Amino acid sequence: MKLSDLGEFGLIARFAPRFLRDLPPGVTGIGDDCAILPLAGERRLLVTTDMLVEGTHFLRAATPPRDLGHKSLAVNLSDIAAMGGRPTAAFLSLGLPGDIALPWLDAFFAGLRALARRERVALLGGDTTRTSGPLVINLAVLGEARAGRIKLRSGARPGDAIFVTGDLGDSGAGLRVLLGGRARARDEAALVRRHNRPRAHLAEGAWLARRPGVTAMMDVSDGIDSDLRRIMERSGCGAAVDLDALPLSGALRRTARRWGWEAREIAAAGGEDYCLLATAAREAAPAMARAFARAFGRPLARIGTVTRSRDGLRYFSGGKRAEIARRGFDHFKTK
Amino acid sequence: MKLSDLGEFGLIARFAPRFLRDLPPGVTGIGDDCAILPLAGERRLLVTTDMLVEGTHFLRAATPPRDLGHKSLAVNLSDIAAMGGRPTAAFLSLGLPGDIALPWLDAFFAGLRALARRERVALLGGDTTRTSGPLVINLAVLGEARAGRIKLRSGARPGDAIFVTGDLGDSGAGLRVLLGGRARARDEAALVRRHNRPRAHLAEGAWLARRPGVTAMMDVSDGIDSDLRRIMERSGCGAAVDLDALPLSGALRRTARRWGWEAREIAAAGGEDYCLLATAAREAAPAMARAFARAFGRPLARIGTVTRSRDGLRYFSGGKRAEIARRGFDHFKTK
Repeated sequence: MKLSDLGEFGLIARFAPRFLRDLPPGVTGIGDDCAILPLAGERRLLVTTDMLVEGTHFLRAATPPRDLGHKSLAVNLSDIAAMGGRPTAAFLSLGLPGDIALPWLDAFFAGLRALARRERVALLGGDTTRTSGPLVINLAVLGEARAGRIKLRSGARPGDAIFVTGDLGDSGAGLRVLLGGRARARDEAALVRRHNRPRAHLAEGAWLARRPGVTAMMDVSDGIDSDLRRIMERSGCGAAVDLDALPLSGALRRTARRWGWEAREIAAAGGEDYCLLATAAREAAPAMARAFARAFGRPLARIGTVTRSRDGLRYFSGGKRAEIARRGFDHFKTK
Repeated sequence: MKLSDLGEFGLIARFAPRFLRDLPPGVTGIGDDCAILPLAGERRLLVTTDMLVEGTHFLRAATPPRDLGHKSLAVNLSDIAAMGGRPTAAFLSLGLPGDIALPWLDAFFAGLRALARRERVALLGGDTTRTSGPLVINLAVLGEARAGRIKLRSGARPGDAIFVTGDLGDSGAGLRVLLGGRARARDEAALVRRHNRPRAHLAEGAWLARRPGVTAMMDVSDGIDSDLRRIMERSGCGAAVDLDALPLSGALRRTARRWGWEAREIAAAGGEDYCLLATAAREAAPAMARAFARAFGRPLARIGTVTRSRDGLRYFSGGKRAEIARRGFDHFKTK
């Protein structure tokens, strides 16, 4: 069997159980946005790591180095946000091809450091090495959270409301703009920026973590079509998503119209939005959505309802069943 | 300026100060074997990360996958050992080329897991991704130590004795055997094994950390010729090394004789020994060496003396100054 037949998630499914058998008490590993380790009392240490490879996750020609430095850290901060945590420290490993020049690296570090300072994350170490292949960026980020507030992927229950904390699809559309070499009118430039400089929803994550009604949370890295399935799998449930309720930015709507794209499909399956996907008990949902809107000045978008496991993931539009073209993101099953 | 002119250490020297300015109180970053973060009371969190790239750090054809899994973890455990710590958790990122097959990965994980279980390290997470380039393995390892016992690189003082906790040069000679495609008699096979399956000196590190007389410690990753200079730089001192006192294994002595190699140069500059290099107050040194020999059944080898900064690193043999062919290991200045 080849890796490409197994896929990234198959790979994790194959190896994770062996290691999970070795877990010490009080520790949660593999399968959520972060690993959770005990610190002292109610304090928990969160750890997440992400590897970005040129050609697989980004194109060097299409991503200014300052943006790439920002994004490398932001995608890890997003995992901390998904657990309701506060990031504390980052460790950077760089595999550098011979053609990387110092001004490029200066800009990369400037982008990384600006975000690190803003979010009070200390870059405490790392490793630099040479590679004959594409540029490789690995970040490991530590964070902290209170035990009682951590939201896992496994707590969703049938009847729960499904929310997202931000617009969906901008990043996926930005990637399309980049790959298609589209002209960059104002909207297109905004979408590219959303793709290159994602914002980790740390404040939103901490806010949601404090609400007892929130039952599950994760970040939207691969698109809700893919990420919702992981909540479903870990929680043993299904989901019904109202395509008409997906929050779309004006830039995405206008650009989709201009180029004949299906905006809702990009929103559902485009990926790299790095907002948060959360489920909440039905009775708590309306008050929570109102409080969120007051706190953040924008809506907490209700996009669907958790259902029974046997229903799987179903989409609706205008009250009727609908289908989307699925492109869930899996590095080992390249489209 | 090109990266190859700057070198890996130049690169760290360029970027580290900017990030060190941002450090929160109680945190030590960049410049030692591990970063140190406060936990509770006297407890400290240690974090280290290492990236191994195929073609730069290992050759896939020359390294059985089981050994590579072992080594990827061992080199990080060695950094924890150098701080006198106990490793607790590991996070693995893999950048996988398309030609890696499942049996290879199974063997890689088996090697990693066997060492993880033996040293009670939990593999808690990671990331797998595809790459068009060489195989990339990044490990981030967490550990714990007591504040009063952590030995930094910066504590060496003129007059201190310099020790290593194991034989030097076996790994460097093993690499020569591999690269030269030498016939594998018993000695050569033993050296290759030392190169492919290094042992992190965790027990030795914990033992040395408990001795108040130990003033500085680090692990031997690039060879003492390179690593001693880092202790010198951080401690503001020089060093005099007795080449006749470098501990050499029988396998290295015999193989060097057979192939006409200079065993002491390989011992000083070969790298990847992953034993520990420590300095200790002169008056504490003799009793410490005797106690080490009793505890571990092998000598704590005294290889030299810390000197004043202006003396630099000097080698001696038969009581007279000597020189070695230097090949200190720096990925960006390839030999």
